Amino acid sequence: MSLLERIAACHGWRPENHRPFVVDGAAVGNTSHGFARLLSDFSPCFQVSDRAVVLNPDLDGFATRSEAVAEVLLRLRDKGDLGGWRDEPYPVVRRWGEPPFLQIERAAVPRFGVRGFGVHLNGFVERADGLQMWIGRRSRNKPTGPGKLDHLAAGGQPVGIGLRRNMIKECGEEAGIPEALAARMISVGAVSYCCERPEGLRDDVLYCFDLALPEDFRPVNTDGEVEAFYLWPIEKVVETLRAGDDFKFNVALVIIDFLVRRGLLEADDPDYPAIVEGLHQRG
Amino acid sequence: MSLLERIAACHGWRPENHRPFVVDGAAVGNTSHGFARLLSDFSPCFQVSDRAVVLNPDLDGFATRSEAVAEVLLRLRDKGDLGGWRDEPYPVVRRWGEPPFLQIERAAVPRFGVRGFGVHLNGFVERADGLQMWIGRRSRNKPTGPGKLDHLAAGGQPVGIGLRRNMIKECGEEAGIPEALAARMISVGAVSYCCERPEGLRDDVLYCFDLALPEDFRPVNTDGEVEAFYLWPIEKVVETLRAGDDFKFNVALVIIDFLVRRGLLEADDPDYPAIVEGLHQRG
Repeated sequence: MSLLERIAACHGWRPENHRPFVVDGAAVGNTSHGFARLLSDFSPCFQVSDRAVVLNPDLDGFATRSEAVAEVLLRLRDKGDLGGWRDEPYPVVRRWGEPPFLQIERAAVPRFGVRGFGVHLNGFVERADGLQMWIGRRSRNKPTGPGKLDHLAAGGQPVGIGLRRNMIKECGEEAGIPEALAARMISVGAVSYCCERPEGLRDDVLYCFDLALPEDFRPVNTDGEVEAFYLWPIEKVVETLRAGDDFKFNVALVIIDFLVRRGLLEADDPDYPAIVEGLHQRG
Repeated sequence: MSLLERIAACHGWRPENHRPFVVDGAAVGNTSHGFARLLSDFSPCFQVSDRAVVLNPDLDGFATRSEAVAEVLLRLRDKGDLGGWRDEPYPVVRRWGEPPFLQIERAAVPRFGVRGFGVHLNGFVERADGLQMWIGRRSRNKPTGPGKLDHLAAGGQPVGIGLRRNMIKECGEEAGIPEALAARMISVGAVSYCCERPEGLRDDVLYCFDLALPEDFRPVNTDGEVEAFYLWPIEKVVETLRAGDDFKFNVALVIIDFLVRRGLLEADDPDYPAIVEGLHQRG
């Protein structure tokens, strides 16, 4: 078993199973044929052909587009065709920070295959006897990855809040990290990937943060999303990553990026070139 | 001025100015039309059409291909059509470590637009009054980037030597770093880019290493490739990167990656998403 399998799980999708989702002349996502068929009931909002799903160009501007699509998504939800409703608006945009074409409910992001954004925290303790990392186990009730191993704190990135502010907020909610402590985190880059998952096409960029925690820190979950926390020697984290898919698929990618940045993987390992390439989406 | 300009200088090439270079059915590079015309004199080794430059498929295996191409390249050199000869064999391969299709002289790598590999060292000092980085100024006699600012040590990656071993060797030659000290370096990932430069198409992956140096360390150049060394506060490095193109184009990319990994750029900086995306080639 190898870290490469964790990398591979984050990449690879079949364009032939999808149609481009086009807004204002730009291909902003990729919609499965099944979801495209559902959308074909909602003309003239969506113009669905065999080749593409086009948001009606007469819908002009952020607010108009967002309202029209929200109406469709609510009807899909009420018919039972859109599960996992979160009531969190996500921007439809190719790069974080650019002006979004519209905003849509989070649950619909992978259905349209538009880019999703998230923030992940590597929370670790630098002890005299070695590096240790805080790991969470996700609640069995989470809609994605129930029971999987996770970061100390992580979350999706909705509209209307900065990346750092959102990460600090997740630190409080998921792990009870006081704001003064969370504010010591540093931003250390991003990983990106595109893959087919049960919830749809995940075309994601995750912004990564590192936080060195004091030895006496103990996390406390406050939002019911975490079942347990563990403080593991980094060797146990690596061993668990290599052994199987106990970690949520994208958490594995962020931790492998951490291992690379900390020099814990050796450049001459035969898998190294593919691992470092696989931390960032290509093409 | 901004770091984004340094990123932009490493990306963007015009496919319409190139033809795919095909070996054993695989597109392994992109050759300019001008260089393709030079190669058309060397049939049957090269089969040159308007659409591609194909290495004769009858040339089977690494050794046969390498010898046939070497003969052509020597004749181009002797005619004055291939400058900057280094006498260093480079592998023709899409990913470092995979079995190479053939090997070619380093000077020809950007002419064929095949992937090139290198190793770069961020050499720094963590002082009580702040982080400082060792910077070199390239000799005015270097074939690429004469007089530009550079890393403490860096070099191309030829065949027949590991990445780490090559980096340690460059540390000795370029900066007189004793092997015992250089061996403390850690491997921290890679940057990648593809752009047109005077020497041809640079489609490169640079493996990055970090080395924390003691305060009393002083570099000594032993191979005549470095004119001077400077120990600069990291703020001065950033300021110089922002101010213009004093740094060699790809050195800027590796230092920006260092700044990102060390948390010296803030996630909510409007340029941050494009900067972290631009450290790795896309598509």
